[in-house]
Amino acid sequence: MSKLVECVPNFSEGRNVEIIESIVDEVRKVEGVKLLDYSSDKDHNRSVVTFLGVPDEVEKAAFNLIRRAAELIDMRKHRGAHPRMGATDVVPFIPIKDVTTEECVEISQRLGKKVGDELRIPVYLYEDAASCAERKNLANIRKGQYEGFFEKIKQPEWKPDFGPDEINVKSGATVIGARFPLVAYNINLGTDDVEVANAIARKIRYIGGGLRYVKAVGVKVTERNIVQVSMNLVNYEKTPIYAAQEMVKMEAKRYGVPVVGSEVIGLVPMKALIDCAEYYLQIENFNMSQVLESRISG
Amino acid sequence: MSKLVECVPNFSEGRNVEIIESIVDEVRKVEGVKLLDYSSDKDHNRSVVTFLGVPDEVEKAAFNLIRRAAELIDMRKHRGAHPRMGATDVVPFIPIKDVTTEECVEISQRLGKKVGDELRIPVYLYEDAASCAERKNLANIRKGQYEGFFEKIKQPEWKPDFGPDEINVKSGATVIGARFPLVAYNINLGTDDVEVANAIARKIRYIGGGLRYVKAVGVKVTERNIVQVSMNLVNYEKTPIYAAQEMVKMEAKRYGVPVVGSEVIGLVPMKALIDCAEYYLQIENFNMSQVLESRISG
Repeated sequence: MSKLVECVPNFSEGRNVEIIESIVDEVRKVEGVKLLDYSSDKDHNRSVVTFLGVPDEVEKAAFNLIRRAAELIDMRKHRGAHPRMGATDVVPFIPIKDVTTEECVEISQRLGKKVGDELRIPVYLYEDAASCAERKNLANIRKGQYEGFFEKIKQPEWKPDFGPDEINVKSGATVIGARFPLVAYNINLGTDDVEVANAIARKIRYIGGGLRYVKAVGVKVTERNIVQVSMNLVNYEKTPIYAAQEMVKMEAKRYGVPVVGSEVIGLVPMKALIDCAEYYLQIENFNMSQVLESRISG
Repeated sequence: MSKLVECVPNFSEGRNVEIIESIVDEVRKVEGVKLLDYSSDKDHNRSVVTFLGVPDEVEKAAFNLIRRAAELIDMRKHRGAHPRMGATDVVPFIPIKDVTTEECVEISQRLGKKVGDELRIPVYLYEDAASCAERKNLANIRKGQYEGFFEKIKQPEWKPDFGPDEINVKSGATVIGARFPLVAYNINLGTDDVEVANAIARKIRYIGGGLRYVKAVGVKVTERNIVQVSMNLVNYEKTPIYAAQEMVKMEAKRYGVPVVGSEVIGLVPMKALIDCAEYYLQIENFNMSQVLESRISG
């Protein structure tokens, strides 16, 4: 079976279609990589690209994209609503199939060194690739943005992980790292009282004493006159979807409120759903290679 | 997304490795087709091949396999324990992904005509491709076997769907058709009383008034001192796994017997499990294209 890594680079151009297409083309050009999606925001003046493929090719496509963005984007002229520090702002690698987080950390390190050495852009590693606790969080690294980095980079605690010890005036600095795939999952409740959704969200999320890898808020779904516990599951292997589901049901009971449905937003790894089938069907010793479709990509 | 069809031909050679390999090679040689498995039984003197791929290529591989088997196998000399009527005995096409049963019926008809015209082998269509009710069931067509077909084929009701109106003396006759993928699913019960498993099996299976696409028997699992409801789910879309699961639980209640686990035997289509996740998580409006892995094979 072939390994699959996802990469979701954000770059600082969301208005000039020619530049955007030229940067995205770097992904299209690499064989063994599939462009899943890309979208641009004019106000943010920023684009997000999603692509998937075998690790080596994904790493190659990411480097080519960063190099192209460095050629075509000039941070001295960049204005936009979204915080940013570089032409290529942030590049997360996400393990999808038969790949560990550690392998994605290694990709981040290798790519970071290459970007630093060859493109002379300072690189910070973040999330699971972070070299210290202060660099785990993207917002923490990015604070001060491009304009603030001329000074920030001189502080010993903000010495880059790779590349020059000063900002690249044209390209800024870039954040690279590894994180687990995020599952956006919402549970609909049979009530119009958003306070019930909020109370449940507070109990099930990590910061409220709930599940380790759940972020949650209560949301009103006005057009259906119901409310929703809206969640980000940031590690579906350690905190599976079924665990979130059952915990929401458990808390909803105290209000006599039923779960009336749920929704998966956007893409979801096959294993995140099959883990739920395994749980509810009580399947013993299931192996993902029993899934017919997993055989064809080998 | 690419369409996927599975094909599981059975041919009448299970002893001569050279012949077996030469026939299986016809599948290996076709690009866009993946050989998943093949196995031979010496007593039956018969081999089963499983392969998967895009419809056109699967059809091509199936024809090449039938042609090769017709060259290398002589039914006049074939002896084996398993009932059989041809060098290639039976060729089912199974819709796996983004393919309808109707498309598999069309493949069967096209292939049947080609085998009949070009190889001069009489062909019968069966299961969902059957031209009349009497030909749906393989055993019914095959009754009398190779030896009996010299006479059987002359009866008007057994005129072949394609090819000559007399048996091919060297190659016999071949059955081709379309059927839904079968899911082999067993549910373990917390008792050592096989009569409980039998009673549940009788209530949940089609012939006992149960679910339309469930075949079931009770089985003892001696090494664990438990029993099992052993099922074949012959249409997981119309009778999903979760329906079988919940119906077994419902019947088990009257004996106060718990479901202690389950097992999926062999390969299973991704959708059969994801349908269960959808049911138990109450997911609304899920689309299979949201599964990340489904994007890579497009």
